[in-house]
Amino acid sequence: MSVLLTGFAPFAGETVNPSWDAIERLSTGTIAGHAVETLRLPCVFQLAAERLEEAIAATTPSVVISVGQAGGRSRIGIERVAINIDDCRHADESGAQPVDAPVVANGPDAYFATVPVKSILARLMKAGIPAEVSNTAGTFVCNHVFYLARHLAETRLPDMKVGFLHVPFSPLQAVAREAPSMSVTMMRDAVALATEVALTSNGDILLAAGSSH
Amino acid sequence: MSVLLTGFAPFAGETVNPSWDAIERLSTGTIAGHAVETLRLPCVFQLAAERLEEAIAATTPSVVISVGQAGGRSRIGIERVAINIDDCRHADESGAQPVDAPVVANGPDAYFATVPVKSILARLMKAGIPAEVSNTAGTFVCNHVFYLARHLAETRLPDMKVGFLHVPFSPLQAVAREAPSMSVTMMRDAVALATEVALTSNGDILLAAGSSH
Amino acid sequence: MSVLLTGFAPFAGETVNPSWDAIERLSTGTIAGHAVETLRLPCVFQLAAERLEEAIAATTPSVVISVGQAGGRSRIGIERVAINIDDCRHADESGAQPVDAPVVANGPDAYFATVPVKSILARLMKAGIPAEVSNTAGTFVCNHVFYLARHLAETRLPDMKVGFLHVPFSPLQAVAREAPSMSVTMMRDAVALATEVALTSNGDILLAAGSSH
Amino acid sequence: MSVLLTGFAPFAGETVNPSWDAIERLSTGTIAGHAVETLRLPCVFQLAAERLEEAIAATTPSVVISVGQAGGRSRIGIERVAINIDDCRHADESGAQPVDAPVVANGPDAYFATVPVKSILARLMKAGIPAEVSNTAGTFVCNHVFYLARHLAETRLPDMKVGFLHVPFSPLQAVAREAPSMSVTMMRDAVALATEVALTSNGDILLAAGSSH
Repeated sequence: MSVLLTGFAPFAGETVNPSWDAIERLSTGTIAGHAVETLRLPCVFQLAAERLEEAIAATTPSVVISVGQAGGRSRIGIERVAINIDDCRHADESGAQPVDAPVVANGPDAYFATVPVKSILARLMKAGIPAEVSNTAGTFVCNHVFYLARHLAETRLPDMKVGFLHVPFSPLQAVAREAPSMSVTMMRDAVALATEVALTSNGDILLAAGSSH
Repeated sequence: MSVLLTGFAPFAGETVNPSWDAIERLSTGTIAGHAVETLRLPCVFQLAAERLEEAIAATTPSVVISVGQAGGRSRIGIERVAINIDDCRHADESGAQPVDAPVVANGPDAYFATVPVKSILARLMKAGIPAEVSNTAGTFVCNHVFYLARHLAETRLPDMKVGFLHVPFSPLQAVAREAPSMSVTMMRDAVALATEVALTSNGDILLAAGSSH
Repeated sequence: MSVLLTGFAPFAGETVNPSWDAIERLSTGTIAGHAVETLRLPCVFQLAAERLEEAIAATTPSVVISVGQAGGRSRIGIERVAINIDDCRHADESGAQPVDAPVVANGPDAYFATVPVKSILARLMKAGIPAEVSNTAGTFVCNHVFYLARHLAETRLPDMKVGFLHVPFSPLQAVAREAPSMSVTMMRDAVALATEVALTSNGDILLAAGSSH
Repeated sequence: MSVLLTGFAPFAGETVNPSWDAIERLSTGTIAGHAVETLRLPCVFQLAAERLEEAIAATTPSVVISVGQAGGRSRIGIERVAINIDDCRHADESGAQPVDAPVVANGPDAYFATVPVKSILARLMKAGIPAEVSNTAGTFVCNHVFYLARHLAETRLPDMKVGFLHVPFSPLQAVAREAPSMSVTMMRDAVALATEVALTSNGDILLAAGSSH
């Protein structure tokens, strides 16, 4: 029994990516009795998708949670929905820049996360970690791998739960710009707690956490 | 041949709703040869849905574009996707506060807009109107009516295009708080141009306008 | 009897500066019986200072109000205080980049505006124009000319009132970036009203409009 | 030889004030050979001023650095200037709400900090702590005590250096709202480093860190 946690390599000129810095600190352990498998994805549409599929095939995890950097946000974003669109204003690290291309041809417009987003939110808040349910994971590589993993679960791996977390810049990144940040230690704790909740919950709780727009 | 444009009544203690202020100024005209039908929806889940359905049934419009207030945003938001969730932190004007209820039971997780969002974006930018493609219309009444209209088109009215625009606060609203605003005249122009584009375009253009997260 | 209103030329790669666009629309009129003199200042420390001093010497205005662009702000900023520091992260349009140099050697650390900032605030709010009292005009050319004009009044022209207004980006500028904007018409109205209040008020009113930090 | 560090008690309904949480962690030590004296000030204009004056009289510190909460900011704010105005939109914790009253009757309009703000900025950045020079400490109790301490130094204690730091919300506070936060550990480190720099520097360095507005 295993859980797969992925982070991303640095992109857009950054020298670090806090999503991976957080995941790396969880790489030698178990959570709720599940072996933690970690994977560092390149910020490249095609390659990230391939590596994620390979890792899922190799480990058949109970839960896969991918984590990505959301520079400018101030809280852990628990993503509710992945949409079937790639649309980039900047190329990925391989130079690819899809515009309004589907993640999966003929796939549905969107998939909701199957990890319990509200239970995760409640757990993070209880632990004193600023968090929110987010209704968009963007249209870049983060959303791409989220949609893809969710599509795999829908079509071939019905027992695999899929979730995505966005993290703010780390303090080191915020030294150079005016932007919110969060300590990598807190991000690591957030991922560990979210994973534990996903592994141990049945269904989700009702907790108002929507957005008016 | 007609087009249906809807705005909302004031909510959450506001005395105006710029979405309606803008729509009202378009109520006696035609756009691209189509009679403009306008409708002021209450900020109430059930009632808004009923009135929108009635108006669509009565007018069988070629295009329906709903407009809502997105206080805090600085630009016209051309919504790309409606999701099948109602989730409110504050009750609607009737006191209803659904949490994680579907807009349509057993409906798909989401629908993409069928108006050409990129063509609309290009047209607004050409006219000097700040605008952006948005990947979330929230989880309140705005998203509710957007999803519902799109579901009607999908299931019963395949020739009806559906879109949604979010507008910032008007200057009058921003007098009392620190928030971006936009003149109602500019909002009206944005809605008129978006409608014209929706009525006259075949398909959409490719224009990078995604979000990294 | 005259009033001197100044705006700035474009800087930092912009093709327009809304401060001048607003002032230009006031250039052929009178306000409260005073001839309006307008002046377009370059975004250059030394040259802006020289031209402002020359214009003040030539017109001996009752009131001088300078206006500058504050990209990113959402409201008219009625500046309360000018400080005796030039400190730039980017060079001015002549390539000069002073760091922690005084505007006026041996001048006091700061001067408060002598136009009635709270009366102006009340008047703009009454007119439906989003406005706020700001406690920093920055440390670039805007603050430089504000401090300089105020120093001239303090040391040589005790009857001349001095004020400074910051304006948001215009909509045209906000098309290309995510930032709040305001119509140039509204900016023009704000400057005209502020000028009228400055010319016709005795003292200021008490109106809470501070900042907690 | 001592240094006086002050934080504030909670205000405006908060149950914690991170400025005090950070200071409290420094209360049993020395920095650069100076005994650290700490003081928790109430968020009350008159009482905070009295207690600060008493503590300064009792300890005659080489450096006094006050720290306050700046909810909404994302970085450590190294304040450059204190202004001679109290102006509150909300009453202090005793119910007092001064509007446009001077901190010190007939005092100068403002005082610059005498701690080396740029050296402190460089030190914090080197330590990986997000920080910025701020040109306004607001017009509430924070600015009040900053101005007062600086006035005491100017008029009676010329050897005492005076500075002020603003800190973001702590993560605990940000759980309940959408706002940036910083760990209290990092705040404590920032205050300790700033204090060390203030105690050991002669003059300041030149480092561009101004604001365009």
